[in-house]
Amino acid sequence: MATQMIETSAPATRNGLDLVQMTQTVEAIQARPMLAQFQFRARNRWVNGGENRSTIRDFYGAGAEDASRDAAFEFTNGEPPVLLGDNEGANPVEFLLHALAGCVTTTTVLHAAARGITIRSLSTELEGDIDLHGLLGLDEAVPAGYREIRIRMKIDADCSEEELDSLLEFAKGHSPVCTTVCRPVPVVLERVRP
Amino acid sequence: MATQMIETSAPATRNGLDLVQMTQTVEAIQARPMLAQFQFRARNRWVNGGENRSTIRDFYGAGAEDASRDAAFEFTNGEPPVLLGDNEGANPVEFLLHALAGCVTTTTVLHAAARGITIRSLSTELEGDIDLHGLLGLDEAVPAGYREIRIRMKIDADCSEEELDSLLEFAKGHSPVCTTVCRPVPVVLERVRP
Repeated sequence: MATQMIETSAPATRNGLDLVQMTQTVEAIQARPMLAQFQFRARNRWVNGGENRSTIRDFYGAGAEDASRDAAFEFTNGEPPVLLGDNEGANPVEFLLHALAGCVTTTTVLHAAARGITIRSLSTELEGDIDLHGLLGLDEAVPAGYREIRIRMKIDADCSEEELDSLLEFAKGHSPVCTTVCRPVPVVLERVRP
Repeated sequence: MATQMIETSAPATRNGLDLVQMTQTVEAIQARPMLAQFQFRARNRWVNGGENRSTIRDFYGAGAEDASRDAAFEFTNGEPPVLLGDNEGANPVEFLLHALAGCVTTTTVLHAAARGITIRSLSTELEGDIDLHGLLGLDEAVPAGYREIRIRMKIDADCSEEELDSLLEFAKGHSPVCTTVCRPVPVVLERVRP
């Protein structure tokens, strides 16, 4: 992360991020690397058919259990009629696109702030291709997941085109969700006896 | 996908899924494989700092643009204070866990229905580890994404332990989100001039 965060003449915030807190976070991690270890969590309960509901609240990070959330976030997965549901919610592969869009955006905004770049606007459109032969087990040669995901980003900022290209390449490579999608990440599924 | 869906004495639904529609979907795809091609989409707009918002509505699948949703789903990504936010929403890596939980659950429920297994209850707890050295670019040897994600599932169904183990192994390998996480999926980030 760049040193431009620590200019004494810098504004207190850039892109809505507190630059002093950003700098302190980086310095704290450099002094005590274990502060960088986070564990995120979700609990989910099946409702019926393609409907299920998650609650998300606690996580571990920066050396402690977080206690900042008064209530849990709740999200409902559903399926459209063509996938045997009733649009009870967006479906899981759509939530994945939401997660990816948000993570690439936040990573871009964060590293822009660190580089002294002010972003005026940023929006994305995502699309991803899935072949149902995979999910349905009709062709074992077809992976069930996305074949490819494309992100089209519109971004307006106070820097050169070259600086924007460099920023976006860096953000793509350092976004946690994008990296989770682009690289193979082990998922362990363990059955717990009720 | 198994043949037990087509028993004439079978119930109309199993696990909340319409067995006739399931069978018709599989038969339609076997007759016209292009019906299995789906494209899912999301649009996202940066708000400020770590806050951004997605709208999800249209998708392409089963040979047509879907028109079943009267309104778009909206979801807000945020960050907790320790990650420079104000808990405006769950954060993107938490939404990824929600997507993964939902997808493994729905894939399990679907293939259980196809195998003639009735599920009485199903819940999951997920946790995933992230080292912020990756996101912050403090150590290029540390991937920004999840190092590993663990799913603990409680499931109660009218089948043997061996059938449950077989079902879960199949569901994990055929869940679109799980497969997207476990395998490397290309993400293309393209900048569109505003």
